[in-house]
Amino acid sequence: MERHFDACLDSLKHLLLSMSALAEQMIADAVKALVERDAAVLPRVYEHEERVNQLQKDVDEMCFTLIALHQPAAADLRFILAASKINTDLERLADQAVNICHKAERLITQPPVKDFAIIPEMAVIARGMVKDSLHAYVNRDVDTARDVIMRDRRLNEGKVAVTENLAQVMMANPAAIPRALDIVLVSHNLERIGDHAKNIAENVIFVVQGKDVRHYAPPAAGDKAAGA
Amino acid sequence: MERHFDACLDSLKHLLLSMSALAEQMIADAVKALVERDAAVLPRVYEHEERVNQLQKDVDEMCFTLIALHQPAAADLRFILAASKINTDLERLADQAVNICHKAERLITQPPVKDFAIIPEMAVIARGMVKDSLHAYVNRDVDTARDVIMRDRRLNEGKVAVTENLAQVMMANPAAIPRALDIVLVSHNLERIGDHAKNIAENVIFVVQGKDVRHYAPPAAGDKAAGA
Repeated sequence: MERHFDACLDSLKHLLLSMSALAEQMIADAVKALVERDAAVLPRVYEHEERVNQLQKDVDEMCFTLIALHQPAAADLRFILAASKINTDLERLADQAVNICHKAERLITQPPVKDFAIIPEMAVIARGMVKDSLHAYVNRDVDTARDVIMRDRRLNEGKVAVTENLAQVMMANPAAIPRALDIVLVSHNLERIGDHAKNIAENVIFVVQGKDVRHYAPPAAGDKAAGA
Repeated sequence: MERHFDACLDSLKHLLLSMSALAEQMIADAVKALVERDAAVLPRVYEHEERVNQLQKDVDEMCFTLIALHQPAAADLRFILAASKINTDLERLADQAVNICHKAERLITQPPVKDFAIIPEMAVIARGMVKDSLHAYVNRDVDTARDVIMRDRRLNEGKVAVTENLAQVMMANPAAIPRALDIVLVSHNLERIGDHAKNIAENVIFVVQGKDVRHYAPPAAGDKAAGA
């Protein structure tokens, strides 16, 4: 029975790592489409979204079954309840990649807006946070989790910088306003991906140390943790 | 033992209803501050935020304890796992009200932007969705939950309308761009409150019918369910 439980926990971790890998690829593809003005990668994002949605249901069902059948002890129960929360954050951050795609589809049919180098930089940070938050969870690695939480500030700063830069672009060139607005919103999408990764990392600390670090993060630039 | 379990479940429902009532008031106050240019209500929003954050921890701890001590049967376990998810959505939608406050604080010190009547209408819809989603949960009321899910479309449409209107305002008056941008983002905050209420309502259907209705909603105007 116990060996079966351990095997189920391993499957749970693998499902979450698969979701994370899909979501990381979705973020990379969405931003590639936007920056390189290349629509060819967009269908893959929508395919990955379908798989993430299915995995979300599988993970929730597995969490339910694990608790109902095995009545796990305290430490394992916290680990499974965290999986259930991480599952939600992964699906929602993958949705943010889809939202970036919608804007990329509109933007690449129109004249390019002035250079916006901060967006790809933000995407790299966001993907790294997602990847590392999941590895922190499966390895119960508090140091990495804390590092993910610290990195969130850089995305908040990126969002503020993009918003301020693009407001200048809009004032100088009112015809570019609808396009510039879309890019501002992309920076918000990326910042929210970071928020979800931060939420995942906070769960890791709770699982390992039993310490609830939510609402104790250092104040960050811009808006509340959950986004803009 | 069973009577004690039922009493704990009742406490859990009351905690969630208290969070919801606080969040509804936060939304009303944040939009009142914005629309009536009245900063007097803002401190109350921040006080309520503190209480919501504390309640979030209390609910998570109660969910954990209920499962660990009582090893609930399938139906009760689904109800408690849903509480844990609803808890997260309530805290995050309350954060959106705080994000509206941050923008209200900036906006009321500056000249007013042209009429934006859609914002208070969106706020009324969003508050109603939050309230009704929680009542649907505690009463296991699928009809109300379905109604909440349907109403989400109206907030998506409101967000699109505000964004388009304000893009026009920006083009006509470039000096108003930073202010207009803040109001566009407020419409996104309200739309995300609706997304969280919709997530809560989807949980209700799952708890009552065992049917996972996520990712089967009718296509809505604008972006993915999770937001902008």
